[in-house]
Amino acid sequence: MSLKVPILKLYDCLIVSIQWELDDHMAMMFQEDLLNKLYETGARGVVLDLTFVDFMDSYIAKVIGDAINMVALMGAKLVLTGIQPPVAITLVELGISLNANSTALDLEKGLEQLRKELGG
Amino acid sequence: MSLKVPILKLYDCLIVSIQWELDDHMAMMFQEDLLNKLYETGARGVVLDLTFVDFMDSYIAKVIGDAINMVALMGAKLVLTGIQPPVAITLVELGISLNANSTALDLEKGLEQLRKELGG
Repeated sequence: MSLKVPILKLYDCLIVSIQWELDDHMAMMFQEDLLNKLYETGARGVVLDLTFVDFMDSYIAKVIGDAINMVALMGAKLVLTGIQPPVAITLVELGISLNANSTALDLEKGLEQLRKELGG
Repeated sequence: MSLKVPILKLYDCLIVSIQWELDDHMAMMFQEDLLNKLYETGARGVVLDLTFVDFMDSYIAKVIGDAINMVALMGAKLVLTGIQPPVAITLVELGISLNANSTALDLEKGLEQLRKELGG
């Protein structure tokens, strides 16, 4: 069985919650799935929730950063939510930028922020 | 790696989307996780989205039906959404009742319905 990152559509946003550690293959699949889903649904925004990610290596960070850039290229806004303290520390210490223009503390705040940005 | 059904908390609701076929072990884990999460978060409602389930056997139907009853016992409201035509046909033909008092066509409608019920 192929394991996928679940992507929910809610109103004109996609909600993506990564709830387990991604391996390299899953991370690539996730990138592809997210872009396809964005195309299929015509969603205008994405909330990418990393609440349950407590460890991020440089490869996964690159895949997520790339996904953020790709979503922007496709004309959608992305809010990154739920970055845990150890993940924030690792990312900054390793000098990795996720290029996320928009971040929020948790899923709810992220969704509100996104809807405000889209509505405005 | 243990594969889990992802459960999102949004406002005072939990959103559960089953996006792949559950095996028996995963179904039991799902039941337990849902109840634990309900207890931890104090959520008052659950949207259980089956949009991506295109086949349901009697065991999985029983686990889901039991989960619905358990959620009710714990004092939360549950809306079942996204039941596919073949699943509806199978359930009715097999005479399986899910005991869902509340159903909706898709996740968005389910969430609206739930928030209306909880707000009222």
